[in-house]
Amino acid sequence: MGKKQVTFADIAEYTNFSKTTISRYFNHPDSLTLENQEKISRALDELGYKKNKLAKVLANGKSEFIGIIVPNLYLHYYPEMLTQLLSSYGDYHYKFLVFVSDNGPEEEENYIDELLAYQIEGLIILSHTLSSEKLASYHIPIVAIEREADHISSVTTDNYMGALQATSLLIRDKCDVLIHINADVPKHIPAYDRIRAFEDTCTEHNIPYELNLTVAGDSYDDIFLQMKLIFKNIDEKYPDKKKGVFLANDTYANMFLNLIIQKYGSLPDSYEIIGFDNSPIANEAIIPITTVGQQIDVIAKTALDLLVEQMDNRKQRKPDTDMKIKHKQITPVLIRRDTTS
Amino acid sequence: MGKKQVTFADIAEYTNFSKTTISRYFNHPDSLTLENQEKISRALDELGYKKNKLAKVLANGKSEFIGIIVPNLYLHYYPEMLTQLLSSYGDYHYKFLVFVSDNGPEEEENYIDELLAYQIEGLIILSHTLSSEKLASYHIPIVAIEREADHISSVTTDNYMGALQATSLLIRDKCDVLIHINADVPKHIPAYDRIRAFEDTCTEHNIPYELNLTVAGDSYDDIFLQMKLIFKNIDEKYPDKKKGVFLANDTYANMFLNLIIQKYGSLPDSYEIIGFDNSPIANEAIIPITTVGQQIDVIAKTALDLLVEQMDNRKQRKPDTDMKIKHKQITPVLIRRDTTS
Repeated sequence: MGKKQVTFADIAEYTNFSKTTISRYFNHPDSLTLENQEKISRALDELGYKKNKLAKVLANGKSEFIGIIVPNLYLHYYPEMLTQLLSSYGDYHYKFLVFVSDNGPEEEENYIDELLAYQIEGLIILSHTLSSEKLASYHIPIVAIEREADHISSVTTDNYMGALQATSLLIRDKCDVLIHINADVPKHIPAYDRIRAFEDTCTEHNIPYELNLTVAGDSYDDIFLQMKLIFKNIDEKYPDKKKGVFLANDTYANMFLNLIIQKYGSLPDSYEIIGFDNSPIANEAIIPITTVGQQIDVIAKTALDLLVEQMDNRKQRKPDTDMKIKHKQITPVLIRRDTTS
Repeated sequence: MGKKQVTFADIAEYTNFSKTTISRYFNHPDSLTLENQEKISRALDELGYKKNKLAKVLANGKSEFIGIIVPNLYLHYYPEMLTQLLSSYGDYHYKFLVFVSDNGPEEEENYIDELLAYQIEGLIILSHTLSSEKLASYHIPIVAIEREADHISSVTTDNYMGALQATSLLIRDKCDVLIHINADVPKHIPAYDRIRAFEDTCTEHNIPYELNLTVAGDSYDDIFLQMKLIFKNIDEKYPDKKKGVFLANDTYANMFLNLIIQKYGSLPDSYEIIGFDNSPIANEAIIPITTVGQQIDVIAKTALDLLVEQMDNRKQRKPDTDMKIKHKQITPVLIRRDTTS
């Protein structure tokens, strides 16, 4: 322990140049003679000076930092997305400053101020607390993933297409009644399209359907208690019908499946179940669950491409000051397992 | 889009000071008269200059950056640990540069070089690729979490105590034979203590036991196929015994439970099951699984405390160049659910 960073003062003393000259060497080397550049360069080797990227950043403004703000890492989705974003280092060599933000807009504004003070070149935002209008007002390269993004570029799963595939499969499998179980998702959130597609598809095929948008709360145990009641109601209400149940995510789908198995000992032909996300739980459930898989790797790559485009534009001599915002949707994939026929 | 960062050159032009004077204002404000400090400060407001922390870092060496290297974010453990580390921002105000490293030692050395070039003040390392001897040779504040750490400070779960609690519960519940299912963990990894504690405790209580350390591979489907065979063997070998099965993690425990339920329709009295980690799957399984919960929040906080101690020492006028490395163990908590009596 205790090897100290070599400072400008150390270099100045060692070379008999002034600190200003040393500073010039790092920031504007061309302002020194070749001879003096070489003297200082040799001294750096002899002193064991370590490359200091921050000095370079100050000179050219390219920090190579991208900020990421995620709301949490509790479910499968955000950790997987973060992994995909961080793993892009091999392709782009951007470094990532990561914040977890789940304490409201004031905290999030603080985080953004911190990120700006460290000269991030761009920001990827997955949290929901600040409006895209507010985010746009920072005038930095920015891309939203799976959130409201009226005023900034964004990438989302094509939620409509995902729910349409799930609903169509339940109809093809000749379910008599279709049920969608979800939270009361606000209409401006991309995931609302799952509800819209379910209704549209049922209506179009003249299939009786029921929307249950009452699930609320964050804890597994809370939600499981609610799911018990929902299952009981459905099970009693449609005793002789084949029920196709499409749930908002795989955690809900696994709960529903467990409740069926606990009551019947196995999955009766009168039930089909489809989840969403392709979380590990969908595969690890007592019966592997059919689900809609988001292409998280493609979403991450698309978001970075959009961001790099904006950041590269900034580095032009004459940046295009009127770059259009872009919205990309990535089609999810229906993964058929053992809870559908 | 397009609002540009105000540069030292802009400020110099606006104030008629030289760029050197402007640089001095940021790095050694005391070297300017109060009057000139105020002139420049006013100009910064008028120009809309944004605080540039990097300039300050160059002056005082305190980047407020901590590097984190995690091997992956696939299982529950690493994302949860990362969340806890990142959430410490509210207490410490350190910013985190995060790398995911799972491509071997060369990649990891590159990452560390990058982190050092950005003047990180300390490093938290969760990946396994570099030896602690190599890591110690960087001579930076560093803390390892749950990995080999002979030459650097570390925090680990008290794996021995966790496995002892699990094994003791199976013995108290009067199991006739105890079985531990795990991968062939190398002896220098902290998790090896789970195997050691299981054997010690069985031996001490004169309970017949079996070690199965054959699980290998990364994919769920691969491991599930292996678990099918392991279950079949155990189920046939001990038909009339009460079997206490302690598994290396909750994913294995859930597989084993599902295989029992698929065969018997419910969990017979002749089986008790305990997992490790308190992952979501332990609670979301068809029958909630008894498990050993790691105190991830305490581990993260302890690691940061150790790291801050080292970083603060660095900032002393006379750093203690002979700081002792410290190893802390955090006791895990046995969480009793429905797969034990």
